[in-house]
Amino acid sequence: MPAGELRYPSPPNSSATETPPDEDEVWGLIRTEARRDAESEPALASYLYSTILSHPSLERSLAFHLGNKLCSSTLLSTLLYDLFLNTISSDSALRAAAVADLRAFRARDPACVSFAHCLLNYKGFLACQAHRVAHKLWSQSRRPLALALHSRISDVFAVDIHPAAKIGKGIMFDHATGVVIGETAVVGNNVSILHHVTLGGTGKACGDRHPKIGDGVLIGAGATILGNVKIGEGAKIGAGSVVLIDVPPRTTAVGNPARLVGGKEKPARNEECPGESMDHTSFISDWSDYII
Amino acid sequence: MPAGELRYPSPPNSSATETPPDEDEVWGLIRTEARRDAESEPALASYLYSTILSHPSLERSLAFHLGNKLCSSTLLSTLLYDLFLNTISSDSALRAAAVADLRAFRARDPACVSFAHCLLNYKGFLACQAHRVAHKLWSQSRRPLALALHSRISDVFAVDIHPAAKIGKGIMFDHATGVVIGETAVVGNNVSILHHVTLGGTGKACGDRHPKIGDGVLIGAGATILGNVKIGEGAKIGAGSVVLIDVPPRTTAVGNPARLVGGKEKPARNEECPGESMDHTSFISDWSDYII
Amino acid sequence: MPAGELRYPSPPNSSATETPPDEDEVWGLIRTEARRDAESEPALASYLYSTILSHPSLERSLAFHLGNKLCSSTLLSTLLYDLFLNTISSDSALRAAAVADLRAFRARDPACVSFAHCLLNYKGFLACQAHRVAHKLWSQSRRPLALALHSRISDVFAVDIHPAAKIGKGIMFDHATGVVIGETAVVGNNVSILHHVTLGGTGKACGDRHPKIGDGVLIGAGATILGNVKIGEGAKIGAGSVVLIDVPPRTTAVGNPARLVGGKEKPARNEECPGESMDHTSFISDWSDYII
Amino acid sequence: MPAGELRYPSPPNSSATETPPDEDEVWGLIRTEARRDAESEPALASYLYSTILSHPSLERSLAFHLGNKLCSSTLLSTLLYDLFLNTISSDSALRAAAVADLRAFRARDPACVSFAHCLLNYKGFLACQAHRVAHKLWSQSRRPLALALHSRISDVFAVDIHPAAKIGKGIMFDHATGVVIGETAVVGNNVSILHHVTLGGTGKACGDRHPKIGDGVLIGAGATILGNVKIGEGAKIGAGSVVLIDVPPRTTAVGNPARLVGGKEKPARNEECPGESMDHTSFISDWSDYII
Amino acid sequence: MPAGELRYPSPPNSSATETPPDEDEVWGLIRTEARRDAESEPALASYLYSTILSHPSLERSLAFHLGNKLCSSTLLSTLLYDLFLNTISSDSALRAAAVADLRAFRARDPACVSFAHCLLNYKGFLACQAHRVAHKLWSQSRRPLALALHSRISDVFAVDIHPAAKIGKGIMFDHATGVVIGETAVVGNNVSILHHVTLGGTGKACGDRHPKIGDGVLIGAGATILGNVKIGEGAKIGAGSVVLIDVPPRTTAVGNPARLVGGKEKPARNEECPGESMDHTSFISDWSDYII
Amino acid sequence: MPAGELRYPSPPNSSATETPPDEDEVWGLIRTEARRDAESEPALASYLYSTILSHPSLERSLAFHLGNKLCSSTLLSTLLYDLFLNTISSDSALRAAAVADLRAFRARDPACVSFAHCLLNYKGFLACQAHRVAHKLWSQSRRPLALALHSRISDVFAVDIHPAAKIGKGIMFDHATGVVIGETAVVGNNVSILHHVTLGGTGKACGDRHPKIGDGVLIGAGATILGNVKIGEGAKIGAGSVVLIDVPPRTTAVGNPARLVGGKEKPARNEECPGESMDHTSFISDWSDYII
Repeated sequence: MPAGELRYPSPPNSSATETPPDEDEVWGLIRTEARRDAESEPALASYLYSTILSHPSLERSLAFHLGNKLCSSTLLSTLLYDLFLNTISSDSALRAAAVADLRAFRARDPACVSFAHCLLNYKGFLACQAHRVAHKLWSQSRRPLALALHSRISDVFAVDIHPAAKIGKGIMFDHATGVVIGETAVVGNNVSILHHVTLGGTGKACGDRHPKIGDGVLIGAGATILGNVKIGEGAKIGAGSVVLIDVPPRTTAVGNPARLVGGKEKPARNEECPGESMDHTSFISDWSDYII
Repeated sequence: MPAGELRYPSPPNSSATETPPDEDEVWGLIRTEARRDAESEPALASYLYSTILSHPSLERSLAFHLGNKLCSSTLLSTLLYDLFLNTISSDSALRAAAVADLRAFRARDPACVSFAHCLLNYKGFLACQAHRVAHKLWSQSRRPLALALHSRISDVFAVDIHPAAKIGKGIMFDHATGVVIGETAVVGNNVSILHHVTLGGTGKACGDRHPKIGDGVLIGAGATILGNVKIGEGAKIGAGSVVLIDVPPRTTAVGNPARLVGGKEKPARNEECPGESMDHTSFISDWSDYII
Repeated sequence: MPAGELRYPSPPNSSATETPPDEDEVWGLIRTEARRDAESEPALASYLYSTILSHPSLERSLAFHLGNKLCSSTLLSTLLYDLFLNTISSDSALRAAAVADLRAFRARDPACVSFAHCLLNYKGFLACQAHRVAHKLWSQSRRPLALALHSRISDVFAVDIHPAAKIGKGIMFDHATGVVIGETAVVGNNVSILHHVTLGGTGKACGDRHPKIGDGVLIGAGATILGNVKIGEGAKIGAGSVVLIDVPPRTTAVGNPARLVGGKEKPARNEECPGESMDHTSFISDWSDYII
Repeated sequence: MPAGELRYPSPPNSSATETPPDEDEVWGLIRTEARRDAESEPALASYLYSTILSHPSLERSLAFHLGNKLCSSTLLSTLLYDLFLNTISSDSALRAAAVADLRAFRARDPACVSFAHCLLNYKGFLACQAHRVAHKLWSQSRRPLALALHSRISDVFAVDIHPAAKIGKGIMFDHATGVVIGETAVVGNNVSILHHVTLGGTGKACGDRHPKIGDGVLIGAGATILGNVKIGEGAKIGAGSVVLIDVPPRTTAVGNPARLVGGKEKPARNEECPGESMDHTSFISDWSDYII
Repeated sequence: MPAGELRYPSPPNSSATETPPDEDEVWGLIRTEARRDAESEPALASYLYSTILSHPSLERSLAFHLGNKLCSSTLLSTLLYDLFLNTISSDSALRAAAVADLRAFRARDPACVSFAHCLLNYKGFLACQAHRVAHKLWSQSRRPLALALHSRISDVFAVDIHPAAKIGKGIMFDHATGVVIGETAVVGNNVSILHHVTLGGTGKACGDRHPKIGDGVLIGAGATILGNVKIGEGAKIGAGSVVLIDVPPRTTAVGNPARLVGGKEKPARNEECPGESMDHTSFISDWSDYII
Repeated sequence: MPAGELRYPSPPNSSATETPPDEDEVWGLIRTEARRDAESEPALASYLYSTILSHPSLERSLAFHLGNKLCSSTLLSTLLYDLFLNTISSDSALRAAAVADLRAFRARDPACVSFAHCLLNYKGFLACQAHRVAHKLWSQSRRPLALALHSRISDVFAVDIHPAAKIGKGIMFDHATGVVIGETAVVGNNVSILHHVTLGGTGKACGDRHPKIGDGVLIGAGATILGNVKIGEGAKIGAGSVVLIDVPPRTTAVGNPARLVGGKEKPARNEECPGESMDHTSFISDWSDYII
């Protein structure tokens, strides 16, 4: 995991014309990577077999790993394993979202050396998958269970996403420590969120009171976005910004309090299609220019 | 837990004329809530019985839960349970403070659906109660034990409050991840502190070198307050602010470095009695006004 | 641990003319302190014996403590103990760096009451030593193992240092929660870094893309430094700053975005030899001056 | 569990004309009993919910309980739970045998106060169910796994049944500690075996070298039966006997070395249909007569 | 623990005229022994502090040790500690019986090198104390809890004593593995019982169906006593015997089936007052005489 | 593990002229077997890697496995691992004895399918190796530690060998549950001991009071040998026997009380060189002949 990257290179082994691996291919790659690592590093082989190589499917591997990570003396691993496995197996969208997230990390983070590495070691990836299960339970009105899970995720990963929050797919929570996302927040697809980011409420309303993050948005480390504001698709939020206003699509907000780069009236436009492989760098020089 | 709220509604089921539940009533409510949840969600019943329903008192429930949360392979749960139980039972103020905190979360956090939920799942609540025990041990000159406990709280909850710090009651540490409070800090009653808040030293003095937070203060997410400064009662500190100066009572400081809203000379006054149900919103629009 | 100190007093029991304790003396002091604490606090004696007093050397004590702290149900304590012990024993520089770090905490943190306290309870110290082992493994091309260790450190301590990052000695990560340091970052000797500090990438480059921190630098709580920038020796970065530029030696940068105190052209010079016992305070008054 | 009973009363709540509860009824009764116990004993409610009341079926309850009982730091509970659940779910005979065993304990052991008590607390019942799974694995040529399970059963319950041994249904291993049953042993249906019983080899043959126990046999505490001998249906073996010979159906062998009661030529006949509710007492008085 | 001793020397440091240590003195001796061992063996000091030296009383030490020994993933150590502590503290007879048992081991077992060694390491001692608690719960009609405890004792120590069985004080279960004692058995005071001993039922009756063992009886390894028979005070039962008959006071029964030494009509009398320091040897030569 | 075998075939893959594998070859074979099993059974691969395949030597593998098997919440696995590793590494005789035992199981037990199976799963093998370490500690006057280890072995494996007892090499404790061996017992080389065997004292002496077992002896299941008697080399003790007398070399004793087969005056001689591959069967037919 690189720290606080604001720009991600193209996926290491893909080109614009190459199709990304599908769900089964990703699981196959994970197994191949794990087998290679187990052979080269016997001290890690037991870990790799128990978490990946002994499982017949990504769902089981993920359920096993999350069950063992999130269990406590009063919430047993067997109970959690069962809960994760049943929930993920019952809704193919959860598996698809996990695969999309794996691809997001692999494509956007130069330090993400393999899918297996992401599956096993990235707390942002794991916290997000566990959140998806908690969210599913919440939507089934199993709220006390969803909240207990929420609490475990916050204890173990220091990632605090309310189970009611809606998170898209192809999400990269990079580093992830300290992320806080409130009850009525919505996060679109292909969003990248760095550590210490808060999507919080302003207190101005009891109901729908948290930010709405559009597709393809990048939020830098330590940014705080408060209230039911809209961050438009393809927008960028600079590290350490405090945002209390809507940010139009494909614009960039920086600073505390955050201002739009280029000015409120005619903000600079980011490139057309930031998407997954978007260029997150242009505002830096802009900002640098006006800073000093 | 909503994320980063700056304003809290009235307690869901209370009015100005209604008396809040007393200590025994709160414990009775916790049990009722837990029993209802256990009935509706069998997968959680074991957890609810072991943590709440098998215990004859709030002290025992809390000691059990903290002992199991904070134990490690070298600090056993039985030892910690004993320590928590004996300390909390020996000082009724600790139980009273826990109940005041429970009421604070319930009244101020719209996402706090029940007292039982708060007792079990809110790391801010649990870290605060564990700190109170560490502080009691510190005041009894059992410093190595207090520091070991401090370390466990920081590992498990990512909440780092020096055992010497004095914390009032009716405190809500919301989300709580990343809170750091130094040795000579003092926090008044009915204070709300969001995640990633630092009450740190400036290094200008070796002795009394940390902030003093008045009653009824609200400190937004990610705020950093450094040095032996006074944050007056009913003051508000904006999210992401860096505060190196005294903030007068009922005023608001925002920004990095923080400035008083309304100006240094004639800062805007917050409403008269912020207290527990205070309105934390006025400065937002003020600030928004001057921001862009 | 004091919270967010920006200035540290002289080591409690040293003077300019006194030689700091060497490696064996530090281990001797740790044992003496632990024995004293065990005698005064029977509830802690078991912990002190298992972690310190039963071990014949600092390497074994540290390997034992880290193995028990970082183990999980799929990465057993015995495996980690073995790994830590063999790695630390095979490279005397790791032991020397641990001792230098212990001395740094003891000298710079007024709340650090003993070497034993630091060894046992400071997550910043422990995370740093575990990182050194991960870094050693990385340099031996045992990358999957290094990354698994990296992940455990991030889960347990909420400290996320990429195993490829190069960290000097005499380092104090104070409070440490939320620290994120990227793959190509370099940190010099005698540096003090507070909690929530990010040394991240800008995305402008795929290769060498993280900050280079010179000797004797102090980085305040919540500071975010992005990109392959140089923070010169003896420089200071204010709490909450967002730094995207080089900072010359012995200058101070503050704010979001960060500016040099005294101005870009003729920044104020910090004192000559900040080093370990450096005075970290001058800029505060400077800054205060220009703030309000 | 009564100790070493040689005679079992009729099932407490059944008569000759009453049909025993079927598989679903038994699971229903187990849940009713567990709920009643949970209500009367809050300290046990967590245990009862986690082991029985949170599970939708006997298979899941049994798999959960065995997984948690037999796990170790190197064979995780989640792995074993999965293995037990998949194996039991894939072969309805395993569930049927478990129910037949539950009925056997309930009918024959006056100290067996409920089905739930038997399911949770009788090591003889649990070891037998775990053996059935190991036997299934053995028959699927998954021998290393079967042997690892065998080893765990021997460690945890002190019951050592080779996974190749064939065990019928309606079996009561009473007390069970120290039971040893060899590789080529066969045990019929409705057999009762007390603790410290050995069904061992004589060494006279390498292949089929262990005892064959007919239906409805009773083997008293501490009896040792060696070699490929036949213990005929409805036979009884006295406590502490050492048996190296065939024992005809419905006869009784006692002593060290064992002799047939009534003499080798015309042994006394046991009652016609010992079966499940057989009278195991007649030989006692016979034996007593000839003893003193 | 010596193996299968049939004769025990006088207590190492007592004479007929010396008073044995009272309850407080025994606890004082235990602490002195543990401190001495902790000093001489640092690798054991943590164990000795956690189990003995950190506790203010024998009750707490015993409750802690049993709670940690008998806990499982579904019956937590904190729950068991609480249960043991509350039960032992509420009935001084339990503490007195524990002390009497400690004295019995110390006086009768030449391999019992200290009270502390017995308290920590003798499964016969620990199983007996845990049984006393289970028996107390049984007598309070908390039967499901008593049976769950019974099951844990049988799993962990391979000692299976029905919670309804009445056990006197000054009892030595030597080695203890495989002991089975049924529901209606009664054991007097100052009895010594070796491993693999069964006090079982004959099946002749549903109600009172287990042996009654008088004061000062010695039962050799592997002996099986079945049915509601009386073993008179000061009697001896030879190793490996199978006893189905009453044994008069101060006589000796040996063999399978057991016969009285000296003959049924005029059995040899054991010495007058076997009691705690009784001579258990005379019958050996008698027996040897008639054997070969 | 076959149950109670009294005769063992020749080693499966050896002949009189074939040299048994040496120490390094055995370790090589263990790894080959484990690798084959890991490939054929992914569910077991994690277990096989953690216990065998990740270790560079038999000593480390054994120390790891015993440390994890014998640890408890108050005696940590890391401490035990260290203790086992240091002790075994410091005395090559311990490794040699372990290898001799492995060969003994492999040669004598037809159910022992591989060296790896024996190393991992045979409680008799593991208890014996742990005893050797306890004995070594005892001989170094580290008695409290030796006794604590003794206690753990008895709890976990139900094998109770006093740390002072001297045990030869090439020993097979088959099944092993319930074995009890007293303080002054001595067991020669190439001895096979079945489960429930007691080598106990008679109480006739305080000092040297336990049996001395010669080389190549076979002791059947449930046999009890009491007192400082000599069991001569190559002798056999029948299952369930109670032995209070010397047994001459190459003779067989059976029964309760035990008699020499062939009579006291002219006992039948066993074959010349029973040794490791001895024929243990002749007495069975003899005995059978005289029994009925």
